[in-house]
Amino acid sequence: MQPNWLAQRSYLTPDRIGLRFGEKEWTFHALFQIAEKVARKLATHQLVAGERVAILAPSNAELIHVIYGCMHARLEIVFLNNRLSPYELAYQIEDADVKMVLAGDGAAEKVADFPTLSFAELFASDETMVAFAAEWDEQQTISIMYTSGTTGFPKGVRQTLQNHTYSAMGSALNLGLAEQDVWLCAVPIFHISGFSILMRSLLYGMTVCLYEKFDEASCAHEIANGTVTKMSIVGVALERMLTYMEQHQLVAHLNFTTILAGGGPVPVSYLERAQALHLRVSQTYGMTETSSQTATLSNEDAMRKAGSAGKPLFFNQIRIEKSDPSSREGEICIRGPHVTPGYIGRFSDKASLEDGWLKTGDIGYIDEEGFLYVIDRRADLIISGGENIYPAEIEAVLVAHPSVQDAGVCAVEDEKWGQVPAAFVVLKEECDVSVLQELCYQRLARYKVPKVFKSVPSLPRNGANKLMRRKLKEWL
Amino acid sequence: MQPNWLAQRSYLTPDRIGLRFGEKEWTFHALFQIAEKVARKLATHQLVAGERVAILAPSNAELIHVIYGCMHARLEIVFLNNRLSPYELAYQIEDADVKMVLAGDGAAEKVADFPTLSFAELFASDETMVAFAAEWDEQQTISIMYTSGTTGFPKGVRQTLQNHTYSAMGSALNLGLAEQDVWLCAVPIFHISGFSILMRSLLYGMTVCLYEKFDEASCAHEIANGTVTKMSIVGVALERMLTYMEQHQLVAHLNFTTILAGGGPVPVSYLERAQALHLRVSQTYGMTETSSQTATLSNEDAMRKAGSAGKPLFFNQIRIEKSDPSSREGEICIRGPHVTPGYIGRFSDKASLEDGWLKTGDIGYIDEEGFLYVIDRRADLIISGGENIYPAEIEAVLVAHPSVQDAGVCAVEDEKWGQVPAAFVVLKEECDVSVLQELCYQRLARYKVPKVFKSVPSLPRNGANKLMRRKLKEWL
Repeated sequence: MQPNWLAQRSYLTPDRIGLRFGEKEWTFHALFQIAEKVARKLATHQLVAGERVAILAPSNAELIHVIYGCMHARLEIVFLNNRLSPYELAYQIEDADVKMVLAGDGAAEKVADFPTLSFAELFASDETMVAFAAEWDEQQTISIMYTSGTTGFPKGVRQTLQNHTYSAMGSALNLGLAEQDVWLCAVPIFHISGFSILMRSLLYGMTVCLYEKFDEASCAHEIANGTVTKMSIVGVALERMLTYMEQHQLVAHLNFTTILAGGGPVPVSYLERAQALHLRVSQTYGMTETSSQTATLSNEDAMRKAGSAGKPLFFNQIRIEKSDPSSREGEICIRGPHVTPGYIGRFSDKASLEDGWLKTGDIGYIDEEGFLYVIDRRADLIISGGENIYPAEIEAVLVAHPSVQDAGVCAVEDEKWGQVPAAFVVLKEECDVSVLQELCYQRLARYKVPKVFKSVPSLPRNGANKLMRRKLKEWL
Repeated sequence: MQPNWLAQRSYLTPDRIGLRFGEKEWTFHALFQIAEKVARKLATHQLVAGERVAILAPSNAELIHVIYGCMHARLEIVFLNNRLSPYELAYQIEDADVKMVLAGDGAAEKVADFPTLSFAELFASDETMVAFAAEWDEQQTISIMYTSGTTGFPKGVRQTLQNHTYSAMGSALNLGLAEQDVWLCAVPIFHISGFSILMRSLLYGMTVCLYEKFDEASCAHEIANGTVTKMSIVGVALERMLTYMEQHQLVAHLNFTTILAGGGPVPVSYLERAQALHLRVSQTYGMTETSSQTATLSNEDAMRKAGSAGKPLFFNQIRIEKSDPSSREGEICIRGPHVTPGYIGRFSDKASLEDGWLKTGDIGYIDEEGFLYVIDRRADLIISGGENIYPAEIEAVLVAHPSVQDAGVCAVEDEKWGQVPAAFVVLKEECDVSVLQELCYQRLARYKVPKVFKSVPSLPRNGANKLMRRKLKEWL
């Protein structure tokens, strides 16, 4: 058992700033009072301990207030990606079987088919007096996030209090901890990269400086002015920020300690440019199933071990499962108290672990000094501007069209987004590209819609009829 | 499950300094290699996973090497206080039923009646190749320390991996964590105040700067030179160090962040003197059963809340159990993952908790802002130079003498040690004080022998025949 994080943090450091958004800021005491108010309003809608809700909203202060209210009320929160199509959202909402969707500004219409409560309606609700839990169970599910895999069907991953605790503690043991820490959050809260910053804030007593969207100018100035001390970022955003800082002759303030860069390896050229700006970059490898970071490369090793994701955090273990013992490469497997205990919905019977290990599907190796290198992402994962895209999900949409016989999707390099998807289709009958594109726009988030469509006579499949997506890349 | 701490720390930060003692220092990699060697030597003596050993030794580098060897071999370690009498040691060794006593320099003769292996013999032993555990169980007992209570019979308190993990993490969340941290350890390793520094070192990747004995001159210079960043201390030692620094016009270096002061409240005058020397003092309240700190007063509140032990660490809860609901005072009760799951030996059947709470026997209150004040220690505990002395233990020795009918012991203030014990005896027949003193020297550690003996016609007892030790104090 642990004390209720919101109550404990407010008790221990009531006057410290817990959240900054735009011109406004809230102390931990104020956040706790808001959480209590929101929890009482939720109770008026029968949303009480043990119930499950989904949240769809932009990353602003109201979202944080609602999340903390839900946590205080001990609701399980399904985080919905607000870039998904209504079709994709419907799948997740149905699979999670939520009692209510809580919808922030402009989100309600995307989930109109479901029982929905807008933030405005929630805030206007009466309060019902209920007793809130003074303690939280470590096995309690705090958050649920959907992530796809080889099948193309997104799975709802449970993240428990224990997962978040060990993830945050392991991160602190690696990056250090100071009373004056402020973490700049310009990554989406509905991703584990963003939500884990909130968890660290409550556990550490640390300010979150929240941005609704990443904006290189504002972030660069926060770093140069020393008003933030840490930041999470994805590679493409880092590049934009470096360019801005170079153009405006800004360098990082001494207060600023670390940029945590996720979503694939950061090119050495970025690291060199960051160094010139006094920016310390730590590359990290993690995923929804590991409640954020699993391995992180320290800044001191960044150049010497460029391309590596570093070493595991203290409580974690990583091993490489090799199908060929003579090879140094194999599947990256992860073990530790930060790894999800399992899924909800249609995959709730599926074990997340094999003999206690999470098999990531990612391919990598560990060098002689113990540094992890990730050389190929699971299921030919495409990472576009920090968002994960699973080819199988797009292929499933394409083959659903009556004119399409077979489809294969792979990544194509893109200057702005890092990668974007490209589609290869085998047609049964004449069909215009615009028709397929339109279908994708209906069914998929915009960032998942292939930028390239190519009609081909057949797809490269191996003897087991498995699509070889790497071959597709060569065709581009 | 957690990774083996020694192996993991050596893997993650092999080149960082883990231990400094005198002119010598060891990296975490070197400490791991030593631990492995020691564990193999222990195996030659059939000391392998699951066995229990006791350690009696001065606080030097060899002791740390043996402790890490025992931990790597997964032995349970009973820490013996090397100031105890052979009679007291025998009680603990028998109660703990250890397989072997590992004895450091000059310690072997004090435990001659038991199977003993001196450090010199151990280091000279052959190595037996054994496979060591890659993982440690959170419920595994790491250390056992004896502490007395109202009964006068010391109880062996188990401290598990989970206890140490949450204790160290809670401390880091309160005091912060930095890569360059060096913790000055001049408190005994056989007390939880000392051993918990080793646990933090392994978990944080932090240097321990070890002193065999507290020495105000050396410690003052470490602090003034900035070669250490944190230090644990007891009140009387703090006073000696302040005096030294004042006399030698030393002030704390900017690198130095915190003195953690335990063993009773620190007088406001000390805090004022410390402030003038730029020394930040955090007062703390903890005990063997809570694997060190339970509550700690931050430096920013030190003057405003002088005499308070502060607020609980993040994972802990404290409540006051009042026999009279109108009173603000009551028994201090503690709950959290840092609290011992129980005892060994003759008290192994005794539950350590009531409804999940540890009843400390200490009396205190929590003020309107949530700060804990400890106003009376359990069982009229006497704290002398940082050592706990339980009156009942001394009384039991005195009444064992045929001339003594009744005995009562209480604290008397002492300039050098803070407190020392004073004894009141009711005699059946003429008996010289020197005889009783001699008996105490035979049976008790020197620091427990009363400095004052008084013969009285009767002792103050209440209606339930309970000795009112506070009345004795008034008689002095």
